[in-house]
Parts: sequence; C-alpha cells; structure tokens
Amino acid sequence: MYMHDYMKVNSEGHLVIGGCDTTELAKEYKTPLYVMDEDRIRDNMRQYKNSIDKFYSGNGRALYASKAFSAVYMYKIAAEEGLGVDVVSGGELYTALKAGFDPSKIVFHGNNKSYDEIHMALNAGVGRLVVDGEGELEKIDAICKELDKKAEILIRVKPGVDAHTHQFISTGQIDCKFGFAIENGEAYEFIKKAMTFDTVQIKGLHCHIGSQIFLFEPFKCCAEVMMNFYAELKAELGLTLPELNLGGGFGIKYVESDTPVSYEGYIEAVSDIIKGICEENELPIPFIYMEPGRSIVGDAGTTLYTVGTIKDIAHVRKYVSIDGGLGDNPRYILYGSEYDAVLANRATDTPEETVTVCGKCCESGDIIIENCHLPKAQSGDIVAVMSTGAYNYSMASNYNRIPRPPVVMVSNGKSKVIIKRETYDDIIKNDIL
Amino acid sequence: MYMHDYMKVNSEGHLVIGGCDTTELAKEYKTPLYVMDEDRIRDNMRQYKNSIDKFYSGNGRALYASKAFSAVYMYKIAAEEGLGVDVVSGGELYTALKAGFDPSKIVFHGNNKSYDEIHMALNAGVGRLVVDGEGELEKIDAICKELDKKAEILIRVKPGVDAHTHQFISTGQIDCKFGFAIENGEAYEFIKKAMTFDTVQIKGLHCHIGSQIFLFEPFKCCAEVMMNFYAELKAELGLTLPELNLGGGFGIKYVESDTPVSYEGYIEAVSDIIKGICEENELPIPFIYMEPGRSIVGDAGTTLYTVGTIKDIAHVRKYVSIDGGLGDNPRYILYGSEYDAVLANRATDTPEETVTVCGKCCESGDIIIENCHLPKAQSGDIVAVMSTGAYNYSMASNYNRIPRPPVVMVSNGKSKVIIKRETYDDIIKNDIL
Repeated sequence: MYMHDYMKVNSEGHLVIGGCDTTELAKEYKTPLYVMDEDRIRDNMRQYKNSIDKFYSGNGRALYASKAFSAVYMYKIAAEEGLGVDVVSGGELYTALKAGFDPSKIVFHGNNKSYDEIHMALNAGVGRLVVDGEGELEKIDAICKELDKKAEILIRVKPGVDAHTHQFISTGQIDCKFGFAIENGEAYEFIKKAMTFDTVQIKGLHCHIGSQIFLFEPFKCCAEVMMNFYAELKAELGLTLPELNLGGGFGIKYVESDTPVSYEGYIEAVSDIIKGICEENELPIPFIYMEPGRSIVGDAGTTLYTVGTIKDIAHVRKYVSIDGGLGDNPRYILYGSEYDAVLANRATDTPEETVTVCGKCCESGDIIIENCHLPKAQSGDIVAVMSTGAYNYSMASNYNRIPRPPVVMVSNGKSKVIIKRETYDDIIKNDIL
Repeated sequence: MYMHDYMKVNSEGHLVIGGCDTTELAKEYKTPLYVMDEDRIRDNMRQYKNSIDKFYSGNGRALYASKAFSAVYMYKIAAEEGLGVDVVSGGELYTALKAGFDPSKIVFHGNNKSYDEIHMALNAGVGRLVVDGEGELEKIDAICKELDKKAEILIRVKPGVDAHTHQFISTGQIDCKFGFAIENGEAYEFIKKAMTFDTVQIKGLHCHIGSQIFLFEPFKCCAEVMMNFYAELKAELGLTLPELNLGGGFGIKYVESDTPVSYEGYIEAVSDIIKGICEENELPIPFIYMEPGRSIVGDAGTTLYTVGTIKDIAHVRKYVSIDGGLGDNPRYILYGSEYDAVLANRATDTPEETVTVCGKCCESGDIIIENCHLPKAQSGDIVAVMSTGAYNYSMASNYNRIPRPPVVMVSNGKSKVIIKRETYDDIIKNDIL
C-alpha cells in the first residue's frame, strides 16, 4: 500500500486528497471517480517553470503535453501557471481553444496531420507546427498561401537515442513512425528541403526519446546529439536555429520502487550540455521547450472504486472486483502497467493479503492491479488507485457500453466536477434510433 | 492481401461490399469509416439458428453477444432474425431496450453487476440473469422482493476447460474472475445455496471457455463436463436443470491462415454429446443457448482509412500512416492481433511490398498491421482493413481526442449510417467550460 506524500489520512482513517475526505467524495459523486489534486498539478507545473528560470535564465517554456489528460480545465490551469501546451490532434486543439488558451503558446504535433487539422491550426494561429512527414510541407505551403500566413515550424527528428522504459540504447529509435532520423541523413535532407519554402520558417527541431524514463543519461545524450546537429546545420547549411524542443518522457512514481529523476536536476544537466556545445560552436543559446505530460498530471490523479464481488479461489488467487475496469484504466491490459492502491475508508489498516484487483468488464484481461497488497477488502470498501492522472481518462473507452467516470478537481477542502459522468444517453447519442 | 469471399471487386478495380463501391463510401462519409455488410451479419445469424433447428430440433436459441458490437441497429437485426441477445452491462441493456428488443430474450451477464444494474434488468423483465458471485443472490433477493418478481437465473460455472487462443488445456481456467469452479466444489456449493432462495429459480448453468477458438475438441469437452455435472446435480441434489448455456468463443477469419470451425459441425458434435449423456443419465434434453458475438459481426466489418504520410526508412521499415489508429482499433496494441488489408481503390493490384500500417495517434504502439502485404501505397489511397466488425467500435476510445468514426451498414448497393461520426463538440460535451 503506497501513498503519495501529498496525501493525508484523517482521524477516521480515511484517505484525504486536497483536503477532501475521499469517502465523502465517493458518496457525493459516486464511483468510479477520478480525483485530481489541483495543487499537485500546479506544483508539478511550477517545478518545470522554476527550474527553467533557475538554470536556463527563463529562456524556455514548459509545454503541458495534453494528450496525458486533455480537458478544458487543464488548459485553463496551464494558462494560469504560465505554461504552453502541446496538442496532437484537431480535437485537442479544439479543446484548448474552447478553454481560451493563447494559441501562440500552442505547439501542434502529429505524424499524420490531416489537411483540415493543419488548416485549423494555422487559422487559429498556433505558435508552432511540428512538421513530421514528407508531404506535410506541401500541405502547409498551400494552406499558408490560402490564409496569407507564414508558418513557424519545428521539425521532428530522431536523435538515435532510445530510452524507452528504463533502457538506454542508442540504436533502434530509427524504427519509429515519428520524425526524421539524424543518423542516416534523412533529417538533414528534409531540413534542406524545408528551407526552400517561403511560407515556412524553421524555428528549431523537436525530439522525444521515450516515456517513463528514470535516468539522466539518455536526456543528456539526446541534448548532446541535438546540439551537435545544430552545429552541423550551421556549418553546412548556414542555418542557425533559435529554438530547441527536447520533448518529454520524465518518469513518475506509480509504485514504491519507482524513482523519478528530479526535474531541476534534469534541467540543470541538460542546460550545461547545451551551453557548452553552444560556446564551443559559437551558436546562440536556443530557447528551449520541454513537454511534460505524465509528470504534470500522473501522480496528481487517483481513481476511487467501490468493491463489489470478491472471489477467493483457494490456492489460486483472490479476485477483488471493483465497479470500473479497463474502460477507465486500460494501462494494465495495454502495457502490463503497475499501480498501487489503498482502501480509502481504512487507509491506516495494515495490508494483510495479496489480491488481484479486477474490473467489471466482460474480459479476462480486465485487471487493474495484479498482486496488490491490501487489508482484507470487503464489498463496499473504497479502493483508491494511485497515479491515475495520466493516460486514464484520456484513453478511456465505452467498452461494454460502460459510461466514463467524471473527473473531480480537489483543492483546499473543496471539490468541483471538471468533467461530468457520462450517461447511458450520452453513449447512444450517435446511434440512429 | 486477403479478401473475404462475400466481397467483390468492380470493373474499376474498387473493392465492393454489399453492392457498394467502397471508394464511393469513403467519399460520401469520409474516412476513417466502419463499413458493415448487413447481409453477412444476417447470414452469420442464420447459420446458428438453422444449425440449432437442424441438429437440435430447434430446442435452443443463439444469443448475439452484443459486447462485440453494441448498437441500437444491431439489436434490431438480431430481433428480426429471431435471435436473443446477451448483454453485460446496464449500458448494453439500455441500448437493447432503446432498440425495442424483447426483454424476455435478453440474458444479462457480469462478474460484478451493480445493484442498479440488477434492478434495471429485473424491472425491465430480462429473460435470464447469469449469476456470477457470492453477494449477487442477496442483491437479487432484495430487489425481487421490492419488485414482487421472481428471477429466472443461470449460474456461471468454470468447467475447467480453457481453450483460449488456439490452446486446449484442461487446467488453469479456475484462475478466472468469472464463474464458480466445478473442480473444487465451489459451483456445487453455490448451486445448493441458490436453491434456498424463494425469489430465484435456477433454469440452468452457463459456461464459456475462451474466444477465437478454432477446434471442436474443447467445445465437446466442455459440453461433456457440463452434462456430467448436470447428472451429478440430479443425483446429489435432485435438481433437474432445463437449460444449458454453452457460451461463445467461435473463431473467425482475420487473416488467410485462420481456419474457423463450421457452426453446423460444432452444433452437430455438441448435440450428440448432450443427447448421449442425457440418455445415459435419464436427464431431459436441455434447451441450449449459444453466445456468438465475434462470429456474427467480426468478418462482416471493414474499416476504410485514407493513407497520409508514408515513411520509407531504408533497410528498416516502411510506415504507411492512415487517418485512424488505436482509437478506432486497439486490438493490435492490446493483443498483437493480426489483420489483413487491401487497397480499396486498387483492389486488383498485386501486393509488391511489406509495410507497417500505423495510425495517427501520438503513441509508438499505434499500429494496425505490422508486415502487411500491399501494392505500393500512395498518399490518398484507401486502405480497407478486413474483419473489424467485432471489438473495434465497441472498444474505441477518444485517445488524443480523436472522434470515433461512424458506422455504415451496406446491403444491396445501398448504405445507411447506423452510428454517426463523433464531432469535436461531442468529445467535450461533458467538460465543464
């Protein structure tokens, strides 16, 4: 039973998040329920912002990678905290614009943007388009001419550093649908081509080396590869790029054994590398972007479920069923992701058994946590699963036509719904009757 | 490039489904687009119905397992074809009722039904509740007393036959969140307990041994185990059960190498076993239920996508991006499922390269088909992915806030939308602005 340090337990032994008794939240809003700690989200955002101020003279911007959890309210928080955002689709852009987010601070991604999406982005005035495919320049060019605009772009490249899930390998990354590889000359050729378009201005390059990374080394290696490439571009093409987007990938604490890197330490280390290579090659120090998503919202989210059927199969396994499942959290069935949980109504009870927390979906793989250490759970107990803020609501489905849970933001003892619970009518809304 | 035998190619070399040129469908409805062949669905349903008539004197009913694809229109087709349906949640029941489906032909499943769901089911008058957990009888009892009704139930048991994905193992199945195991006496004890409730009448047992099964043996073995257990229940408890639900699990053709069993052959084989054991033990021949889902809709569905960005990474891989992805078909990333595809606008062209068909989601695992043999695809080509009728729309998400595609039913050269395309406004409809 792991619990985040920003959480509390009250005198009744109930889990408290953002000053709210989670058992009261479960009563008021019903379960399953996503609870987000607003202060934690803001703290996470400020850590990035402050680190850039401290170690990089404020010459950069953290972009909230909103695919982790895209909601109108999230873009409002990001705006208030002075962050930019990255969006990866027309739908995310639409949501950001509905929130009144300053389009000039939006960076638009995608390995296969549609014509309509590019049009929507340029028309809205998004700050940067991250170009990521051969045909994209031609689309942008046509749209820019139609709209009488110039597109400020970043180009996505593959630095050849693959740090996906705990490993640090400097090959392989080339086999990826995103970006242009540096190592085989693809990136160089594409940049040369992009320079010939009057309608686009190349502001910099973008890279991203993976996700849920717990080491400094791959980030440092990536920054080094990128800056050396900047030096090459200056030397070979006379191209000086004023910006560098370093992507995201910062690991978070899902279970006790996870050891996230400090954002401060990351920015300090990367900052040193960038400045060093700039000095060596007489390059201007670029304005940097970072794209934290999971590390902004992941550990701020908790899902509350109510325990239903319990099956104790002697000598085999004990299944504790909850009233949600892969529909609201598909990460176990997708990736075998680990989570930890507490009983919110008995948060001080000692764990005394190992159970499998499974969902109510008609699917054997509908598991939330395999081998979870819990006090002896009973029907009606509230299970609080930690670190569900990222890639839970955003990946949720209506499998089995189960409505998606609401999202409640908590802070200072107050709670408010930021996304309502779906109704059965919502689910059939597009069915022709 | 595999193509189902019910599909055609017209003189222009375009893929034709249900008499409709798929390139015209793509133009009219845009892509991505789910296309369902209504005649194929009806044919699949009739095969089950006719086989029960032929080999089991019509003494049974096929239930469309609607979790495979739950939509108002599907329940209407099932009703017209004389099938029952199985539902696994309040949302599926709600959809079936909205379609005007006869509740007495609905079987309600779930390993962790909520009080509200059981109430909704009993109040609506569903034909059978499949009881699947210790606390469920008490809930049913309370609700029956409130509604002054008697519940006709099946009890879900684990026959100890696990035929999941090509394997035939007679152990292991006990480690499952569904049902009560026969082998350790759980099922027997639970049935004994259920017999003490005045408010429930046990009509029979339910079993399900897996999915996408290509062999007769496990089905036969399962029928044998079940009927021997029926004999035991009669001998030990004096309980004669008039019904038997054999579940689903019939494999379908996703790729050329898949070899589905014939439904006729299955029903003939199982029928012989049931009748034999009944005769031996002087049991009445039970009314049987079967629950085909995937094998009703799976091969009737095709997803049309438009090719966008193509990345040919020399000596590594060629990525052909399409305008959908794991949001509309998560089965590759969930299970590594295999699919095959044709270019709908050049369906007679010879495959000449092996590519990876990937989506537009911001996720490396967003792949639809790895190693797909296709003619040299170009941006603008229409890719038709076969056998996407089951567990595609039903498992679809709004990951990256991408709207879910519409579903179009085709028959006799006519097409009609049965589920509309989601809009951006649909996606943010529950966001508090």
